[in-house]
Amino acid sequence: MAPTRWGIAGCGKISSDFVNAVQHLNDPDLVVVAVAARSVDSAQKFAEKFNVKKFYGSYQALAEDPEVDVVYIGVINTTHLSVGQAILAGGKNVLMEKPLAVNLQQTQQLIAEAKACNVFFMEALWSRFIPTYTEVRARLQRQEIGQVMHAFVSFGVPIADVPRLKEKELGGGCVIDIGVYAINFLLWVFDEEKPIEIKTMGTLNDQGLEMEVTAILKFSNNRFGTIVLSTSALLPNEAHVSGTKGTITLRSPFWAPPHLTSPSGNFDCPLDPSERKYEFGNSQFLKYEAQHIASCLEKGVKESPVMPHSSSLLLAEVMQDIRQQLGSWF
Amino acid sequence: MAPTRWGIAGCGKISSDFVNAVQHLNDPDLVVVAVAARSVDSAQKFAEKFNVKKFYGSYQALAEDPEVDVVYIGVINTTHLSVGQAILAGGKNVLMEKPLAVNLQQTQQLIAEAKACNVFFMEALWSRFIPTYTEVRARLQRQEIGQVMHAFVSFGVPIADVPRLKEKELGGGCVIDIGVYAINFLLWVFDEEKPIEIKTMGTLNDQGLEMEVTAILKFSNNRFGTIVLSTSALLPNEAHVSGTKGTITLRSPFWAPPHLTSPSGNFDCPLDPSERKYEFGNSQFLKYEAQHIASCLEKGVKESPVMPHSSSLLLAEVMQDIRQQLGSWF
Repeated sequence: MAPTRWGIAGCGKISSDFVNAVQHLNDPDLVVVAVAARSVDSAQKFAEKFNVKKFYGSYQALAEDPEVDVVYIGVINTTHLSVGQAILAGGKNVLMEKPLAVNLQQTQQLIAEAKACNVFFMEALWSRFIPTYTEVRARLQRQEIGQVMHAFVSFGVPIADVPRLKEKELGGGCVIDIGVYAINFLLWVFDEEKPIEIKTMGTLNDQGLEMEVTAILKFSNNRFGTIVLSTSALLPNEAHVSGTKGTITLRSPFWAPPHLTSPSGNFDCPLDPSERKYEFGNSQFLKYEAQHIASCLEKGVKESPVMPHSSSLLLAEVMQDIRQQLGSWF
Repeated sequence: MAPTRWGIAGCGKISSDFVNAVQHLNDPDLVVVAVAARSVDSAQKFAEKFNVKKFYGSYQALAEDPEVDVVYIGVINTTHLSVGQAILAGGKNVLMEKPLAVNLQQTQQLIAEAKACNVFFMEALWSRFIPTYTEVRARLQRQEIGQVMHAFVSFGVPIADVPRLKEKELGGGCVIDIGVYAINFLLWVFDEEKPIEIKTMGTLNDQGLEMEVTAILKFSNNRFGTIVLSTSALLPNEAHVSGTKGTITLRSPFWAPPHLTSPSGNFDCPLDPSERKYEFGNSQFLKYEAQHIASCLEKGVKESPVMPHSSSLLLAEVMQDIRQQLGSWF
């Protein structure tokens, strides 16, 4: 396997977890070679912490670094478009933190530019690469719960006062922040089918950003998906997919689950023991996503078969539909 | 305590479970003295099985039996109105199987007649009398999960081909059959408040009866309830109520739960060991409802404080609203 040399754009918490997970693999062919932030000081601090040899105070410099094969972009949502464009224009492969962008139009634009640049481009929906998710997919395909009819997910944490949730300038709203995981689960279990109809209810904060959201999605053949999102309540944060013979459940946190329960037997994907501190729960599982990218680059494909551009577009479309129905800014 | 002498109208499965549970109490002050069915043979068979001394082939005869204090009505939904009227007119107290009637108008009519007859009248929403439910109520009042913001329930079993579900003449549709439990849970945790808005999606069978239903209910102060009902899929059949500090969960079957899980500690209400066969899961818990009725009769009240007429009316109104939105027959 050719080495995968990572550049990191953005030196926040999620980038920290990503680098942590990659380095935890201890794979000489999977290395972080450079980091960039808006401020060179942040980049330097981050580089020193993770023992990365190069650091830049501009994303342009990272885009031009010939030693970088692929860039992980972990900047704030509202700058995904501009930073993404700069990195893509440098001819780099890109793994972009979810959501790809703050609305459908920007999502389409980024995907078009990635295609034009003929590079690998993927939305970092890491859940899909965790073995627990792979196991769900395999069980659904074996029809272990019969014909799938319903799926439902809750994701709620008291984060209404967190700036990235409540402020327009930072993207804001719970749909693109936590809803992206819940909607991803529904579209994924219903085989990336476009919902026939969506009905939603919710509440907006004083900036017009959605804080509580409940939505019903109707799919073909009388199948339904339901999501409940909250920035005020601590919800169960479980995902369920139910068929004629029973239910497969991903207990909390459903977006990074170490276990699944199923009538045909449970499944465990233990978290690696780690002395490193992660910012978010179960970020050890980011390693599976990093390994998937390496494998895609090795094969020379421009899209992931597990999280293709079409999935990102559908996800963006559904998120936008829900926000539009609520009158949310997006 | 004065003895409570029960008459039983309808000799089907649910009546069988109710008598079983009452007799299991082995309380000389809580006895079944007479049973009635449309057919005297059914009534006789039932009476012999449960060692009840009197049996009738008409509900009128039961209504006129001076030894009967209160009648449990377990007839099919479409005859709740006519049988209820006959029993009430006889001056008997009544415990009517849920739902009180097949639509709002009949529900209002029965309640008006019960008031006119000045007897005790209650809908048999037995979940509310199970200690697990009482414990949920106490914990919510102590604000153990903070301020309640969301509740959601799923109830689904593959029963689309069961006559009482699929046929108009038998009442039919999943809302009044299983949905009544799910909606009861929402209204109960949101303190019997009338929803501000309801949005629903679902499917109807060839008789125009709803077979799959998902509904969002909006309550005051930005609180939301969600129900998912299915007659095709085996859903988790759990109920969750979530507040700012966490979630209380009733695992399956949420309508008759022996356990609750909560961040502040779990609670168990073990099922009595029983050699008697029950038709439905956890019907041992019907004893709590029977004891509650005895206590109400002892106090001479005409309505239960736990399941008052207003709760039955609200429940009927919400069920009707959901069915109307779906275009279901009701």
